[in-house]
Amino acid sequence: MVSADIERLIGLLAKLPGLGPRSARRAVLHLVKRRESLAQPLAKAMAETLDNIKTCSRCGNLDSQDPCALCRDPKRDGSVICVVEDVADLWALERSAAFRGHYHILGGTLSALDGIGPEDLNIPGLLARVNEDGVKEVILATSATVDGQTTAHFLADKLAGTKAEVTELAHGVPVGGELDYLDDGTLSAALRDRRPV
Amino acid sequence: MVSADIERLIGLLAKLPGLGPRSARRAVLHLVKRRESLAQPLAKAMAETLDNIKTCSRCGNLDSQDPCALCRDPKRDGSVICVVEDVADLWALERSAAFRGHYHILGGTLSALDGIGPEDLNIPGLLARVNEDGVKEVILATSATVDGQTTAHFLADKLAGTKAEVTELAHGVPVGGELDYLDDGTLSAALRDRRPV
Repeated sequence: MVSADIERLIGLLAKLPGLGPRSARRAVLHLVKRRESLAQPLAKAMAETLDNIKTCSRCGNLDSQDPCALCRDPKRDGSVICVVEDVADLWALERSAAFRGHYHILGGTLSALDGIGPEDLNIPGLLARVNEDGVKEVILATSATVDGQTTAHFLADKLAGTKAEVTELAHGVPVGGELDYLDDGTLSAALRDRRPV
Repeated sequence: MVSADIERLIGLLAKLPGLGPRSARRAVLHLVKRRESLAQPLAKAMAETLDNIKTCSRCGNLDSQDPCALCRDPKRDGSVICVVEDVADLWALERSAAFRGHYHILGGTLSALDGIGPEDLNIPGLLARVNEDGVKEVILATSATVDGQTTAHFLADKLAGTKAEVTELAHGVPVGGELDYLDDGTLSAALRDRRPV
């Protein structure tokens, strides 16, 4: 019989993705042992940060201010918009430090199976930005999954009437990847899009 | 560039066992989306529960009161003490609901490699309880690892002078386990300790 308080905390932690009941129990013991150094700062950061986080009304990014730091940054190129599914994708692209334009977060992909249609994604916001802000290029960086590619095609159609050039990410061999372990689709794409050295 | 607040929260979450930087990022996005239903209760439970948790001065269990609920429970048999390494082991035994006695948490195992000697474990507390409380049986439920078994032997020596009977957990084939996948040590133990059907 574990104390009801502890059981409750374990139950809540177990709801985090990546943690099950067993690792939630280990996490609680870890937190109890590191009360000052981890548990208290974490509880504080969780309460404060999550209360302050806003969704950027322009691009859909999460930040403590609206518009977000990326949309406000004068050093970034507002004439290029990179369209991604989720904030996690934006974070991944920012970690690569390879893109210095603006983002637009759709909030998911079209999915017939999950009943997600165009009206569930932030597509009107994207079209408005492209039409109003003098955007020169829209990079469609949705996932290379069936749903992601369906969404990209849908967006390419919608954007065909605007002045912006529509591009997509290159497909090919991942850097550091071995040919032997690659799927046929990736290999075909890499071969088709081959380029002079 | 992710907001500094969010980066900080990700960094703290990534310190939990079972979560790395990538799953911590996913956890934060999960928390942002479930602010009322998960993030706020979790921050609250973390702050409150962890502030209130005490270590039971008798057995070493974690509880909101000292002595803990297990030590205070009049329905439990105080004449049998089950000695475990850690609170997680106590929780595991309590989940099995197979033991209705009291516990004693050592706080680890003897370990020459990690420099953990008898003075680092709560062995005096165990000896005091066995001598004073009319304990009839001490079950040594340390892990079946080298360190765990070394600790059990050490404790068995120490307890030899008391009136309590000293027992250990049975070794054998795990329930649901296939012979084919078992290690030699377990199989030998299961064969050695075979019993009439």
